[in-house]
Amino acid sequence: MALRTVEQYKESLRDGRVVYFRGHRVEDVTKHPVIGIAVNHAAIDYAMAHQPEHRDLTVYRDPGSGDEYSRYFKIPRVSEDLLKRSELIETSTRLGRTLVVLVKEIGTDCLFALHLIAKQMDEKLGTEYLPRVRALYEHCRENDLAMAVAQTDVKGDRSRGPAEQDHPDYYVRVVDRRPGGIVVRGAKVHTSITPNANELFVIPTRNLTEADKDYAVSFCIPLNTPGLKQIASPYGAGHDSRFNHPISSRHKMMETLTIFDDVFVPNERVLMNGEWQFAGALAKTFVEFHRFTAISYKLPLLDLLTGSSLLIAEQNGIERAGHVREKLTWLISYAETVRMLTKMSAIRCTLKDGIAVPDTAAVNIAKLHFASNYHQALMHVQDLTGGLLVTGPGEEDLKNPETGKYIERYLGGAAGVSGEHRLRMINLISDLTTGDFGGYQATLAIHAEGSLEAEKLTILREYDRERVKSYARWVAGV
Amino acid sequence: MALRTVEQYKESLRDGRVVYFRGHRVEDVTKHPVIGIAVNHAAIDYAMAHQPEHRDLTVYRDPGSGDEYSRYFKIPRVSEDLLKRSELIETSTRLGRTLVVLVKEIGTDCLFALHLIAKQMDEKLGTEYLPRVRALYEHCRENDLAMAVAQTDVKGDRSRGPAEQDHPDYYVRVVDRRPGGIVVRGAKVHTSITPNANELFVIPTRNLTEADKDYAVSFCIPLNTPGLKQIASPYGAGHDSRFNHPISSRHKMMETLTIFDDVFVPNERVLMNGEWQFAGALAKTFVEFHRFTAISYKLPLLDLLTGSSLLIAEQNGIERAGHVREKLTWLISYAETVRMLTKMSAIRCTLKDGIAVPDTAAVNIAKLHFASNYHQALMHVQDLTGGLLVTGPGEEDLKNPETGKYIERYLGGAAGVSGEHRLRMINLISDLTTGDFGGYQATLAIHAEGSLEAEKLTILREYDRERVKSYARWVAGV
Amino acid sequence: MALRTVEQYKESLRDGRVVYFRGHRVEDVTKHPVIGIAVNHAAIDYAMAHQPEHRDLTVYRDPGSGDEYSRYFKIPRVSEDLLKRSELIETSTRLGRTLVVLVKEIGTDCLFALHLIAKQMDEKLGTEYLPRVRALYEHCRENDLAMAVAQTDVKGDRSRGPAEQDHPDYYVRVVDRRPGGIVVRGAKVHTSITPNANELFVIPTRNLTEADKDYAVSFCIPLNTPGLKQIASPYGAGHDSRFNHPISSRHKMMETLTIFDDVFVPNERVLMNGEWQFAGALAKTFVEFHRFTAISYKLPLLDLLTGSSLLIAEQNGIERAGHVREKLTWLISYAETVRMLTKMSAIRCTLKDGIAVPDTAAVNIAKLHFASNYHQALMHVQDLTGGLLVTGPGEEDLKNPETGKYIERYLGGAAGVSGEHRLRMINLISDLTTGDFGGYQATLAIHAEGSLEAEKLTILREYDRERVKSYARWVAGV
Amino acid sequence: MALRTVEQYKESLRDGRVVYFRGHRVEDVTKHPVIGIAVNHAAIDYAMAHQPEHRDLTVYRDPGSGDEYSRYFKIPRVSEDLLKRSELIETSTRLGRTLVVLVKEIGTDCLFALHLIAKQMDEKLGTEYLPRVRALYEHCRENDLAMAVAQTDVKGDRSRGPAEQDHPDYYVRVVDRRPGGIVVRGAKVHTSITPNANELFVIPTRNLTEADKDYAVSFCIPLNTPGLKQIASPYGAGHDSRFNHPISSRHKMMETLTIFDDVFVPNERVLMNGEWQFAGALAKTFVEFHRFTAISYKLPLLDLLTGSSLLIAEQNGIERAGHVREKLTWLISYAETVRMLTKMSAIRCTLKDGIAVPDTAAVNIAKLHFASNYHQALMHVQDLTGGLLVTGPGEEDLKNPETGKYIERYLGGAAGVSGEHRLRMINLISDLTTGDFGGYQATLAIHAEGSLEAEKLTILREYDRERVKSYARWVAGV
Repeated sequence: MALRTVEQYKESLRDGRVVYFRGHRVEDVTKHPVIGIAVNHAAIDYAMAHQPEHRDLTVYRDPGSGDEYSRYFKIPRVSEDLLKRSELIETSTRLGRTLVVLVKEIGTDCLFALHLIAKQMDEKLGTEYLPRVRALYEHCRENDLAMAVAQTDVKGDRSRGPAEQDHPDYYVRVVDRRPGGIVVRGAKVHTSITPNANELFVIPTRNLTEADKDYAVSFCIPLNTPGLKQIASPYGAGHDSRFNHPISSRHKMMETLTIFDDVFVPNERVLMNGEWQFAGALAKTFVEFHRFTAISYKLPLLDLLTGSSLLIAEQNGIERAGHVREKLTWLISYAETVRMLTKMSAIRCTLKDGIAVPDTAAVNIAKLHFASNYHQALMHVQDLTGGLLVTGPGEEDLKNPETGKYIERYLGGAAGVSGEHRLRMINLISDLTTGDFGGYQATLAIHAEGSLEAEKLTILREYDRERVKSYARWVAGV
Repeated sequence: MALRTVEQYKESLRDGRVVYFRGHRVEDVTKHPVIGIAVNHAAIDYAMAHQPEHRDLTVYRDPGSGDEYSRYFKIPRVSEDLLKRSELIETSTRLGRTLVVLVKEIGTDCLFALHLIAKQMDEKLGTEYLPRVRALYEHCRENDLAMAVAQTDVKGDRSRGPAEQDHPDYYVRVVDRRPGGIVVRGAKVHTSITPNANELFVIPTRNLTEADKDYAVSFCIPLNTPGLKQIASPYGAGHDSRFNHPISSRHKMMETLTIFDDVFVPNERVLMNGEWQFAGALAKTFVEFHRFTAISYKLPLLDLLTGSSLLIAEQNGIERAGHVREKLTWLISYAETVRMLTKMSAIRCTLKDGIAVPDTAAVNIAKLHFASNYHQALMHVQDLTGGLLVTGPGEEDLKNPETGKYIERYLGGAAGVSGEHRLRMINLISDLTTGDFGGYQATLAIHAEGSLEAEKLTILREYDRERVKSYARWVAGV
Repeated sequence: MALRTVEQYKESLRDGRVVYFRGHRVEDVTKHPVIGIAVNHAAIDYAMAHQPEHRDLTVYRDPGSGDEYSRYFKIPRVSEDLLKRSELIETSTRLGRTLVVLVKEIGTDCLFALHLIAKQMDEKLGTEYLPRVRALYEHCRENDLAMAVAQTDVKGDRSRGPAEQDHPDYYVRVVDRRPGGIVVRGAKVHTSITPNANELFVIPTRNLTEADKDYAVSFCIPLNTPGLKQIASPYGAGHDSRFNHPISSRHKMMETLTIFDDVFVPNERVLMNGEWQFAGALAKTFVEFHRFTAISYKLPLLDLLTGSSLLIAEQNGIERAGHVREKLTWLISYAETVRMLTKMSAIRCTLKDGIAVPDTAAVNIAKLHFASNYHQALMHVQDLTGGLLVTGPGEEDLKNPETGKYIERYLGGAAGVSGEHRLRMINLISDLTTGDFGGYQATLAIHAEGSLEAEKLTILREYDRERVKSYARWVAGV
Repeated sequence: MALRTVEQYKESLRDGRVVYFRGHRVEDVTKHPVIGIAVNHAAIDYAMAHQPEHRDLTVYRDPGSGDEYSRYFKIPRVSEDLLKRSELIETSTRLGRTLVVLVKEIGTDCLFALHLIAKQMDEKLGTEYLPRVRALYEHCRENDLAMAVAQTDVKGDRSRGPAEQDHPDYYVRVVDRRPGGIVVRGAKVHTSITPNANELFVIPTRNLTEADKDYAVSFCIPLNTPGLKQIASPYGAGHDSRFNHPISSRHKMMETLTIFDDVFVPNERVLMNGEWQFAGALAKTFVEFHRFTAISYKLPLLDLLTGSSLLIAEQNGIERAGHVREKLTWLISYAETVRMLTKMSAIRCTLKDGIAVPDTAAVNIAKLHFASNYHQALMHVQDLTGGLLVTGPGEEDLKNPETGKYIERYLGGAAGVSGEHRLRMINLISDLTTGDFGGYQATLAIHAEGSLEAEKLTILREYDRERVKSYARWVAGV
C-alpha cells in the first residue's frame, strides 16, 4: 500500500494516541484547531506523491521489485542519490513556506544510522539487531508511514552523565527486562511531529559509560502504544489571519514532551539494549544524516529572507543606497554559501557499508555557517523593512472602509506599490522574523539537529590535522 | 494640579478620541482588553510619584515657585540633572519589566528640542515661537500630562523628498492657512502611546528644501482633536497567561498609524509653519534628546538578558563550560559598555542656551553599540537557554495533575531547581526573545529613535576630524 | 622549445630591461640580491615541469600536435580542466611556501579573457583581434614564456573617470597612432613579477565612456621594449636569515610601478585600440579568471595558518582549553569553506565560446569570504602563539653558546619540544603574520585581484534575483 | 636629584649591564644602532619634564616636602589623579608616535600594586614588606629612575603549574636562602625596556599553590646586578629610512629574554619570599593598574589609525563612497568607545588603602574592546589605503630624478595632493599596519598586559551577578 493518500494518512492518526494540549486530552488530532494545522502541513508529503509536477522527484521505483515508494526511503548509494534527496527536502519545504515537512525525513535519517550501527554491533558484540532494523525499514516503507524520532533526553544537570544525576529518570532507561521485551521509563523533550506521526524511533542522545548501561536503549514503537504520553507545546498557536501571518496561519510543526510511563517494547522492536559502547555512535550517526536534512531544508528559508529583502528594499525605494546594497550582498552570500556547501556535502560523500554518507566537514561547516549567522541575517532583514514590522495595522483595518482607505493611501511604497501589497510583504517578513514563528525559526537555527557547540566539536574532531601539520613542519624546518 | 493620580490619568483618556483596533472603533481605551494593558503600563509613571520609595527620584520641586512636578519636566542644566533623568527613565522601565513607560520621556525630549529651535527661529527669522513653546511646556507640566510625539511620516518612496513624491500626502503638510490657525493633512507611522496620551506633538522627520515648505510644520494638539484618527496596531496583542508570558501579559505599548484628516490647529499651538530651513534641525535635536532617553531605557533590558542568562546557565548546569563563560562575558561586556557610555554622555554634556545637551558622540555610539549587537545578544541568550524556549509545555499542562507531575519531575534542572521554576525562567526568556514581544524589542532595537544608519551618519558628521588628521600629518611628516 | 629549464628561463631575463631598485638601475635581475630571490621563486614553475613527482600535473599533451606544454596553457573545456588547473596552482604555491608563483597563472588568465572579448569585439565591431590573440597565445605557449599583466592604473582621483582627471596621464592611453602601431603613455601600479617575466600584457582597469576612447587600450610587449621602465618596490626586502624568516628569506614576489614612456607597440601586438565599449568587459573577464587563480593559491596559506596553529597550541600545552578549541575550529571552518567553494566554482562552471568559465558567484563569494575574514584569522593565530612572535631571540643568539644554552632550556614547550623547535615554529608564524611578509599577505588578501567592494558588487550584480523574489511574492500572496 | 636630564639618564645606562643582541654582547646600549633608538625613545620622558609646554603635566610637587617629582610617581588618591596620569601617558605616547615610553609607567604600576599587597601580607602573615616597598618607592622617585617589570615566566607547558613542569626552572624561583638575602634562578620573557631601565621589578605571573612556594618570589634589583643577563629580541630592527618608516625609524621598544642565573638579591630588596597565597593577588593587582596604563597609551594609536584613514580617503578621492563612510564611522566609534571607557575607569575608581584603583570592569572592557577589534581596524585602514602599502617605490626612487619625476607625476592623488605627500601618508600607514612595527603593535594589542582571555576572565569574575539575577528572578516570578 505504498504511497498513501492524504486521507489515508489522516485516518491513520485516529488511533487512540494520548496527546495533551494546554492541559486537555485531544480526542482527534486531525480535527484539533492547532494540531490539525500541523497535520495538514505534514500532509504536503502525501499530496506531493500524487501531484504530476512533483511525482518524479517524490517517488522512486525499487529496482528489485519494481514497486514504487516514497523517495525518502531510497537508501543513498551515490552522490546523485543524496543530491536528489536534498532536492526533495528543499522542494517540500518550499511548499511548506519554509517549514520542513519532516514526516519522512527524520525517520529515514534514523533508519540509515540504525543500519550502520546495528551492523557494527552485530559484528562486534554478536547481537542480531540488523535484521530487526531491516524489518522495521520494510514495515515503514511498505506502509508509507510517518515517522518521528525522540532523541533529546530532559538531562537534568547537563554537566553530569545519566547515572550521576540526582534523579535516575533524567535520561530514558530500561527499568525492566522481560522475556518478550523491555520496559522503559523517562521522557524526551522537543520531539517534533509526534502528534501526527505513526511510528516513533527512540535513540540515545550522547556518549555513555558502562555505568550508564541501562540508558543505552533504542527502539521503535507505534505512537498509540500504552504508556506513551505526549504533552504538546502551546508555543506559537493561534495565528488565524492569513493576511497578518501568511506562513504560520497555514503551517505548523508540533513538538512534545514525550513521556515513557513504563512502556513495554516487544523484542522485535528493540534496537539497542545495554550496548553502551555504541550509544554515542548511534547518536552521532543519526545526527550527521539529520544535519544533511537540516541544511537542505534551510535553503527555502534563506531564499525567502533574501527574496523578501530584495522586494521590500524596492518597495521602500532604498535599493540603491550603499548600505542597502551591502546588506543585500551579505544576505546573498550567506544564502549561497550554505547552498554550495550543501551540494558539496553530497558531492564529497563517502561510502560506508554501502550507504552514501554526506561529507561530515561540509555538513557541519554548512550548518554552523547557517546557524551562527542567522541572527545577523534577521537584523539585516528587519533593518531593510522598517518599524512597520511591529507597528502596522491589521487585516480588519484594511477591510473596514473607514480605515482601509487611509491604509491604501498612506502605506503605499515606491514604484506604485499599493498599501495592501506593501503590508502583505511586511507581514510576511514579520511572520518570518519578529513573531512566534520568527522566534521558532531562530531557536531552531541554533538548537535543532544539535547546537552550535556540537557542530564545532564535530568539525574539530573530524578534521585531518596531520595534513596541515606536516605542511607547517616542513615550512618551519622542524 | 501637578502629580496626578492613576485614576485622574485614566479618567483623562475618556475624551472621545477616535481610535480603531482591528477594524473597530474603541469606545473607552482604558477598558479595552488590549489597549487597557497599555494604559495600565503607562500608569506606572503616575503611580511612582505617589510611592514613597520612588518619590524622591520621580518628583522635583521648582526652585522658583516651590511647587512639585514630575521630574521629567525638569529642564537639565548640569550633568547631574541628566544623570538623574537617566536614572528615573531606567527605574520606571525596570518596573515596566524592560518596557519603557514613555508618557513623559518622549514629550519632554520634544519640548527641550522645541525650546532650542524655537529660539533659533525667532532670532534668525523674527518669528515668535518661543513664547508658545514655553506656554505649552507650562500647560503640560502644570497638568501633569501624558505626551506623545508623532515624527515619522509614511514617506512613500524613501529615495525622494516630500515634494517629489507621486502622492502629495506622503509627508504631513499644511493644506490651508486661515486667520486663526492652519489645516494639516497626512499621516505619521509608528507613533507610540498615542491611544493613551493627552497631547500629541508633531514634528518633521527630515531635512527639507524650499520646495518642501508646506511640509515644514510642527504643532501640538490634544488627542481628541477633530479629524485626528488613530489606527492602532494589532501586533503582539493577546497574551493573557502570566506564566507563559510574564512580561507581555502585563506590559504593552501601543503604536498607531496616526491620520491627520484635515485637522485644524489654532495658532497658539502651531510651532513651525513653513520654516523649512529649521525642519532638519528640529528633527535632529529632538532625536538627540530622545536617543539619550533610549540608551537610558535600554539598560533594564540589557540587565535582564544578562541576569536571565546567568540563571538559566546555572539551572542547566552548564555555567562552567568554556563556551558558556565566553557568552556570559560577552553579554556582560555588552550591557556594561552601553551603561558606561550612557553615563559618559551625561557627564560630557554641553550647555546650549541654558539646556544641558547629552554628548552627541557618546549617545550615538552607545545607541549604535546597543543596536548593532542586539541580535548577537539574542543568539547567545537563546543558545544558553535551549530548545525548550519554543517546545515547552504551557501553564495549563502544569496545572493539570495528570500532566503536571511529569513536568515537575522531568523538567527540573541542576541544583535542585524545580520544573516549575525552570519553566518560568525559560518562559521569561521566551517572552523576551522569541515571541511577539521579543520581535517587538528586536525591531525597536534597530528602528526606534532612528535607524543604525542614522546613528552612523551622526557619528561621522559630528566627529572632530581635524584633531586626528593633524596628528596624522605630523607623524607622516607632511 | 616548450618546457624550458630553470637556466633557460633565467637566461631569458638578461635582455636589457630597465628596472630600478632603491634608486639604482639593476644590471642583471637574476643576480640582484633581492630581485634574484624573486627569480628563484618564479623558477619553481620551470623546475616542476622536470620533476618526476610533479610532471603529470605540470605538463599536458596537446591532443592535436601531440606536443607537450605547460598545463597552465591548457584552455579549460570542462570542470575537470579547472579542477586540475586549481590543483596545479595550489601545488606550486605550496612549494612556494604560500607565495604564488604566478609566472604562468596570471598571463593565461589574461589570455583566456582576451580570447572571449576579442571574439566579441570582432563580431560586434568587425575588428580582427582574435587572430592576434591566438598568435600571441601560441607564441607564449611554444616558448614557455613567463607573463605579467599590468592592469591597475594609478587613477589619481578615484571618484573621477580617466578623461575627467586633472592630469591626462592618470590612466594609460594612446598618445599617437602610426601606420605600423600605436604609442602609449602612462603608468600602472602594483604589477607583479614584471622584473622577472618575459612578456607584459596590458589591459584596462574599468568601464569606460566614449570620452575615454584613448584609454581603451590593450596590448602585449616584451619587457625589454624601449620606453618601458620599472620602478621596483623595496617593500619587504632584506630578510636573509632562514631561521628568523623561513618563508620570506626564500620566496619573494616583486611589484613595480610600471612606466610607459611613449612606448611604441606594433599593430600585431595591439589587442584593443579605442573600443571603449569593451574595456569594462575585458577588465571584468580577466578578473573573474584571475579570482579563480586567487582562491586556488590561497589554499596553502590557509592550510599553513591552520597547521601552524594546531602545532603551536600543542607546543604551548593549551590545545585542550575551551577558547583554544573554539579558535582552532574557527580556523578550520574558515580554511575549508574557501576550499569547498573553490571546488564548487570549478564544478559549477559555464561554457562560453568553448571556454569553461568558473562560476562567478562561487568564485566571488569564496574570495570575499577569504578576504573579509583574513584579519580575524591573523588575530586567532597570533593569540594562540603568544608574545614571543615579536619578543623572541634570534638565530645568532641560538648559535652563540653563551646565550644558546638559555634559549634551549627556557624556551622549550610542552611534550618535550625543544627551544629551537618551538622558536622555529614561532618564527614561521611571525614571518607569516607579523612582519613585512605578513603585512604583504594581509594587503594582498584585501586588494589583490580586486578589493572587497569589487567582489561585493559582482555578487550583487550577478545574482539571480527573480528566482527568490518570485518565491517571496508567492508566500506573501501578492 | 629628581627630574634627571636626558644626558643623566643616558649616562646611568653605562653601568656594565649584560645585554646580548644578535649573539653579541653590547658594550654601551646608548650607542648601539638599534638599542640606541630605544634609549632615545625612552628619553622622551626625561625631555618632557624640562619642556615648558609639558612641564605642568609631567611634574608634580609633593605637598609635604614641596619637592618636584615626575608625576608618574604621584600615588593616585582621587579620580582627578587618575585622569591626569592617563593624560600624561597619552601625551608622552603621542610624542612617541604611538609607541608608549613606559620607563615610569610600568614601574609605578608595579609599585602601586606592591603597596597594596605588601600591606595585606604584613597584616595577614606578620611579614614586614611594606617598609621595603616604601623605601624602594622613595629610592626610585628621588633618583627619577627608569624601571622595568619582569612578570611573564617562560611557562613550559602552560596547562601545568610551576611545580608540575618537566623542568623546575620554567618559572623563576628561589634556589637558595641565605642570611643576607635569596638566590633566584629562571627566566622571564618579553620584559620590555630592560636594556634601558635602571631598576627591574620581578613579580609572579599567576596564582600559585602551596607546592609552588619557591616560585612565590618578588624583588627589585638594578639592571647591572651580577647574574642578570638579557638577550634582546632582534625583531623589528633595522629600519633607517624616515621616509619609508616614519615611526619605526625613530621609535623603538626593546624586549628581552631576561635570565636570572643564580642572582643574589639582598633582603631589603626582597618583596615576596614564599607567600604563595598572595602571588596571584600581586600578579592581578599589578595587571589591573597596568591595563589602565595600557588603555591610556592605546589612544594615540587609535587616533592615528582614524586620522590617517580620513586623510588617505580624501587623497584617494573616495571619502564620499558609502562603504568608505561606513568604515570611517566604524573606526571613529571604535576609537571613541575605548577613549570614553578609559575616562570612565578613572571616574568610577574605588579607594583601596588610600590608593585610587581604576574601575576593573571599565578597564577590562575597554582593553578587551580595543584588543578584540584591533585586527578589524587594520583591515579597514588597509582597505581604504590601497595596495601601494606594499607595492610602492621607496625613498631613493623619489630622490633619483630619473625615477622621481614619474613618482611625482603618477602617484599624485585627488585634490592636488603630490606624489610625495601621498607616498608619505601611505608609508605612515604601512609602517603602522603592514611591516614589522605594524605586526608588533598587533601582537601587543592581543598579548601585552594580559591576553584577551585574561581580560574576559576578569570581567566575568568581577561582575556583580546578584544585581541582575535578582531582577531576572523578580520578572520571572520565582
